[in-house]
Amino acid sequence: MPDIAAASLDRHDTIRAVNYVEGGLRLLDQRELPFVEKTLECRTAQEVAQAIKDLVVRGAPAIGIAAAWGVVLQARTLAAAARKVDLATLLPTFDVLNAARPTAVNLAWALARMRAALAQAEKAGAASDPLAALTAEAHAIQIEDLAANRTMGKIGAAFFGDDIGVLTHCNTGSLATAGFGTALGVIRAGFAAGKIAQVYAGETRPWLQGARLTMWELVRDGIPAKLIADSAAAHLMKTGAVQWVVVGADRIAANGDTANKIGTFQLAIGAKHHGVKFMVVAPWSTVDLATRCGEDIEIELRDPAELLSMSGKRTVVDGADAWNPVFDVTPEELIDVIVTERGAIERPFAAGLARLAARG
Amino acid sequence: MPDIAAASLDRHDTIRAVNYVEGGLRLLDQRELPFVEKTLECRTAQEVAQAIKDLVVRGAPAIGIAAAWGVVLQARTLAAAARKVDLATLLPTFDVLNAARPTAVNLAWALARMRAALAQAEKAGAASDPLAALTAEAHAIQIEDLAANRTMGKIGAAFFGDDIGVLTHCNTGSLATAGFGTALGVIRAGFAAGKIAQVYAGETRPWLQGARLTMWELVRDGIPAKLIADSAAAHLMKTGAVQWVVVGADRIAANGDTANKIGTFQLAIGAKHHGVKFMVVAPWSTVDLATRCGEDIEIELRDPAELLSMSGKRTVVDGADAWNPVFDVTPEELIDVIVTERGAIERPFAAGLARLAARG
Repeated sequence: MPDIAAASLDRHDTIRAVNYVEGGLRLLDQRELPFVEKTLECRTAQEVAQAIKDLVVRGAPAIGIAAAWGVVLQARTLAAAARKVDLATLLPTFDVLNAARPTAVNLAWALARMRAALAQAEKAGAASDPLAALTAEAHAIQIEDLAANRTMGKIGAAFFGDDIGVLTHCNTGSLATAGFGTALGVIRAGFAAGKIAQVYAGETRPWLQGARLTMWELVRDGIPAKLIADSAAAHLMKTGAVQWVVVGADRIAANGDTANKIGTFQLAIGAKHHGVKFMVVAPWSTVDLATRCGEDIEIELRDPAELLSMSGKRTVVDGADAWNPVFDVTPEELIDVIVTERGAIERPFAAGLARLAARG
Repeated sequence: MPDIAAASLDRHDTIRAVNYVEGGLRLLDQRELPFVEKTLECRTAQEVAQAIKDLVVRGAPAIGIAAAWGVVLQARTLAAAARKVDLATLLPTFDVLNAARPTAVNLAWALARMRAALAQAEKAGAASDPLAALTAEAHAIQIEDLAANRTMGKIGAAFFGDDIGVLTHCNTGSLATAGFGTALGVIRAGFAAGKIAQVYAGETRPWLQGARLTMWELVRDGIPAKLIADSAAAHLMKTGAVQWVVVGADRIAANGDTANKIGTFQLAIGAKHHGVKFMVVAPWSTVDLATRCGEDIEIELRDPAELLSMSGKRTVVDGADAWNPVFDVTPEELIDVIVTERGAIERPFAAGLARLAARG
């Protein structure tokens, strides 16, 4: 099968976070960027799950894509050992991958698609090739994500006025997706359309995805960008420098409440305070109609140690404790627009999401 | 003259940021804490100004105290060279020290006190010893700051209910003052009174004063404390874990608008959103009635490089830019209480501040 990267390279897709090649999943190690461009090759589903846990690959859509390929890797191992490739033999793999991280729904969504593809192959009986079906499905998940991002870019950028400033958070670009990006895709499209004069990126402690990854993507694309401390966002808004906050999502509940990187909620409160518009951009796979509202979303708490060190060097006195939630929930009333590849919706989101669901 | 540290040590004063000893000003180098306890000894006013610029010493009250001792150092140099110690010979020194940092008013306030002491000595004529007068005044500024902090501790803690959680920002403890601290002094007093169950400290990017300095002070005092990413504050408030945000100030305008470390404004917006109370604690020297409101306060912009590296290691791609304001202004309508050693006031602050001014 073709190399995904080679199949779809364009100006905005020179970065490829997740790249399947016959029998191996090559992940650009995002813990080391931007100074070390190291690729980690996973040969097993277990290795993919560990890479997701360890943030080698991160970003809700990219996690889903990586997990789909993880299933393919295990299916290949089974096939190579002349074992049956079916739901029973793959169940432990689905479970391990699904447990890698709890908040982003794209992981569960991608695995559900893989299960459905497998179930269909099983139903087709002797004529079917479950491994081929799984490989095709993982490929489709990745290609469709890229297409969704391009579509969202156009839809989202249409909301912008001229000569605006935009603030974003975390990394939602090529590194977080199959390419182009969600929120960063909208920013790319807005810049390409001549509407965005200046981008600001919050550094996004503790992993610095904004500082390390988003700034890297923006500088590569020649988009005027300034890094800010996460705590400077409200002050920036007060200066009038930004008209839109544009962020991604890890899970969007049926009422529009949105889980995203820690700090997003604080940006939304600041935006409301200053009359700055707030846009959430995410593929339809991020929408979880089975989750009623934000309260029902599990927020991942990570190791306090992530806050107690920097660049591998301890910065906080021994004996100190930390509280390290890595996501938060922005209530729907603080969001102005949700952009998916099925269209953009404004409040009330429950009705809009139900309408978009019907288009599926 | 006595060593200030020796004169006033108590349980909460084992840390001494600014320590004058005959002919030298010993500054605990706060850039290296908590792992390296290095003292930098300044022998000239110029060295003190540079140390203030370089954040060897930081915190509005501590900066004022250091600057006062800087004047003493230059007066000693003049006296040793048998030159006259007067306003004319010291004017360049006042200017150099005053220009070291723009936002905190305590710097200008301490220098104004030193000038007044000098003017009085000059007026007294031949009988006076300007060097002795300046030394006494610097000593008074430092001792009075410590006393003010103890008083504010009691006044501020009286506002707390039982078993509360408190969030603070930056460092406002012994390291930022003559000892005990402003906001951290209130937290110390509240903990000593058995009212505070848990303290949360924002790490305070980019210099990490919360992570490096406040956590150090809290752990030393055995106060239960958790570090959080600055961006996690709103999410923390949403959990109901904090009832008060308690912060210091670098300048309080006549209407109550308060300049403080970048991120304070964002905390105040979050606190208002969640019904969490917001307290500003600062000695009267921080109140600047000559500044009408926050818009008239100069916000220091520092080198973007401070955001582009961590622990001396570059974290952001080359060619990237950053916006690095190190203070912001919290408008008075987001503040519930301002605590000074002259008393606590609630809104409207303009009237309260005028009332406290009359007590001077």
